[in-house]
Amino acid sequence: MREPGSPFVGYGQPSRFESKVVRTFSSAPGTTGTGSSRTPLQRLNGTITPNGLHFERHHSGIPDIDPTAHRLLIHGLVKRPLVFTLEALSRYPTETRIAFIECGGNTGALYQKEAAQLDLQASHGLLSCAEWTGIRLALLLEEAGVEPQAQWLLAEGADAAGMSRSVPMKAVDEALIALYQNGERVRPSNGYPLRLLLPGYEGNMNVKWLRRLKVTAGPTMTKDETSKYTILLPSGKSLQFVFPIEAKSVITNPSPGSSLQAAGLYEISGLAWSGYGKISRVEVSADGGKSWAPAALQEPVLPKALTRFRVPWRWDGGPAVLQSRATDSSGYVQPTRAALIAERGTKTFYHFNGITSWAIGEHGEVRHVYA
Amino acid sequence: MREPGSPFVGYGQPSRFESKVVRTFSSAPGTTGTGSSRTPLQRLNGTITPNGLHFERHHSGIPDIDPTAHRLLIHGLVKRPLVFTLEALSRYPTETRIAFIECGGNTGALYQKEAAQLDLQASHGLLSCAEWTGIRLALLLEEAGVEPQAQWLLAEGADAAGMSRSVPMKAVDEALIALYQNGERVRPSNGYPLRLLLPGYEGNMNVKWLRRLKVTAGPTMTKDETSKYTILLPSGKSLQFVFPIEAKSVITNPSPGSSLQAAGLYEISGLAWSGYGKISRVEVSADGGKSWAPAALQEPVLPKALTRFRVPWRWDGGPAVLQSRATDSSGYVQPTRAALIAERGTKTFYHFNGITSWAIGEHGEVRHVYA
Repeated sequence: MREPGSPFVGYGQPSRFESKVVRTFSSAPGTTGTGSSRTPLQRLNGTITPNGLHFERHHSGIPDIDPTAHRLLIHGLVKRPLVFTLEALSRYPTETRIAFIECGGNTGALYQKEAAQLDLQASHGLLSCAEWTGIRLALLLEEAGVEPQAQWLLAEGADAAGMSRSVPMKAVDEALIALYQNGERVRPSNGYPLRLLLPGYEGNMNVKWLRRLKVTAGPTMTKDETSKYTILLPSGKSLQFVFPIEAKSVITNPSPGSSLQAAGLYEISGLAWSGYGKISRVEVSADGGKSWAPAALQEPVLPKALTRFRVPWRWDGGPAVLQSRATDSSGYVQPTRAALIAERGTKTFYHFNGITSWAIGEHGEVRHVYA
Repeated sequence: MREPGSPFVGYGQPSRFESKVVRTFSSAPGTTGTGSSRTPLQRLNGTITPNGLHFERHHSGIPDIDPTAHRLLIHGLVKRPLVFTLEALSRYPTETRIAFIECGGNTGALYQKEAAQLDLQASHGLLSCAEWTGIRLALLLEEAGVEPQAQWLLAEGADAAGMSRSVPMKAVDEALIALYQNGERVRPSNGYPLRLLLPGYEGNMNVKWLRRLKVTAGPTMTKDETSKYTILLPSGKSLQFVFPIEAKSVITNPSPGSSLQAAGLYEISGLAWSGYGKISRVEVSADGGKSWAPAALQEPVLPKALTRFRVPWRWDGGPAVLQSRATDSSGYVQPTRAALIAERGTKTFYHFNGITSWAIGEHGEVRHVYA
C-alpha cells in the first residue's frame, strides 16, 4: 500500500500469481494445431468459463479470418440460396443463451480398464460453458425457403480441415449462428467470426468458422462423422449420429491432484449438465454409492448449461469414495460406470457419462478409482 | 483454408480484427492509475462483460498482491476478531450470482446543460456485469459474532489509496466475499485476490483488494464518502449514503457514433438494470417519448444483473428520437431527464438515471440529444 499501483490497460489479464490457470494442450505428431486444449475445471468456480480458458478441439489449427472477407452460404434444398456478409448479419435480431459445449470424446479415458491417474483438467477438461449471442438459424433458413424434402443440414467450417458435420433438422429449433461469446465477439479459437451453436449437441457439431450450410435430404457422411465421433459397440457395429450429450456430473473440488489437509468440514462442489434439458437433481455419495445425499443446485438452473452443485461434508480423516449422480428433466439418471460399460463395451471413447469416483486416502490425497 | 491454422496457447485472446474492442481510460494529472477505464458497451452483446473489458475505477492504481501474503481482517464490534488467509477461506462454502456493478459517477455527463457528444463507452461505460462466486459475508460475520449495537461496516481496500467506504448492515444479506469472476479468479483490476460484492450498490462500495472489515455502530465518514460519492442538491445540502443504483436503461445499438445505412428493419437493443431488484419492463420509443412499445426481455431476468432488451424497428429514413424506459420489480419507473433534474438540480454528477435520447438524423447518423 506504500506506492501507487499499476496503470490502466485496454484489455486486462489475470494476475501473475494465477499463471498455472491455463489450458493444457496436445497436438497430433507433426502438427501444431490438430488436437485439443483443456479447461482447468479444478481451478474454476461458478459455471461460466472465461473466454481465454474455453476448451478447443481443432482439426487443423485456428484460421485467421478477416471478418470483412468472410461469407456464410446457405444452399442446397432451398428456394433462394443466400450468401451473408457479417455486415448483413448485423441487421438481424439476436438472442442470448448460456450453453455448455462438451467434446464427444471428453472423459474417453474412463472407458479404459484401469482408472487413469489424471487430474480433472486431463480427464474432463473438454467441457466449457459460455453466454452465447447470435441469430436464430431458423430465421435465416426461413428466408432461404427450405424445401419439403429437407431433413438434414451439412455444416462446414472455414478451417484447413474443412471440418464438417451432418445436423438433423430438428436441431434447428434451438440453433444459433453465434457471433458473441460472454459479451464479446467469439474468439478465433472458438470460431471467429461465427460458429454454429447447437445447445446440448456434442461439441464438434457446433461447427466453428462456419462458412456453409447445405440443406440436404439425408446425412452427408463426412469424413468427420464416419472416421470419428461414432461409438463402436462390442458387436462390431457402430452407433452413428449420437448427438446430444447424456446427463453427466463430476465433482470438481476436491479432485485428483488436490489433497485434504485435515479432518473437518469441506464443501464438495461440482458441475452437472445434460444435452436433453435441465439438471433436476444431483446426489452426492461419500461411501462409493451406498448412500446418497441431495446437493444444492445453484440458481438459475438453465437447460443445456452447466449447473454448479454444492454440498457440505465433514471428513472424518478416514478413507472415503466421493461420487456424484445427476438426473435431468427428462428423468434420465446418470448411470454407474459398470452399467454404461455393460451396454457400450470399452472399444469406443465417445460419450462416456458414467459416475466418476474420487477416493480420499488416509492422508487426504485424492485419486481416481473405479468403484 | 489452404494452410493449417495457428497452434494452441494456454490462455487465449480476442481476434486481431477486434483490436478496437478495448477499454478507454483516463487518469488524473500526474498519475497513471487514478481514474477510470470504460467498457465498450456499444461493441458487446448479451449481458456478461468479459473480464478483460470490465470497467475499472481506481484511486491509486492496481496493487500487485501475492495471495499467500494477503489477509482479511474482521474486527470492531465483534466477539472474536478474525484474520483469514486465502487458504482458510478456501474451506468455506461458496455461492454464485450474476450481478452488475456500476460506478456511482456513470453517466454523470448527462447532468450537463448541453447534450455531450460522446459515444456510449464514454457516456455509459462505467457499467459491467459478471458471474461472481464467493463466500457469504454473513457467514464470516456470524463466526466473528457481531455485537448488538453494530449497524455499519467499514470496508477498506489494500490499494495505496486505502479506499474505504461505510456499508450499512442491511447490505450484508446479499454480500459476497468474491473470489471468482466469470469462473476464474477475480482479476487484479477487479480486486485480486478478493473483493466485496454488494449486488445493486454503487460501484465503489464493492471494495476491491479487501483487507479489512470493521464492524461499527455508525458510518465512519471516510474521505471517499465525504469528498466524493455524495449528491449536491440545489439547496446546497448533500445527499450522503445513496447506495443502490436506481432503475436505468440505455439503447446500446444503435448508439452515438454508429449510423443507419438505409431505411428498413433494425433491431433496437439495449441494457436495463436496477439495484433494487429485477427489471420487470422496458419500453422503447422512436418518437422522443410520445408513444412507447414494450421490448422483449432476454431470459433469464435476474435481480441486480444487466437485462438485455430488444425490439424490432422499421426506420422510415426520416428523423427519429430513440428512448428506452425501464421499470423494476419495486414498481419504480426510470424518470425523464427533466424530472430527474427538477428534483436533483445539476450540481452533482452521481446517480444520473434519466431516460437517454438518441436522435437519428436524415442520413442515419446517431446523436445524443436532450428530448
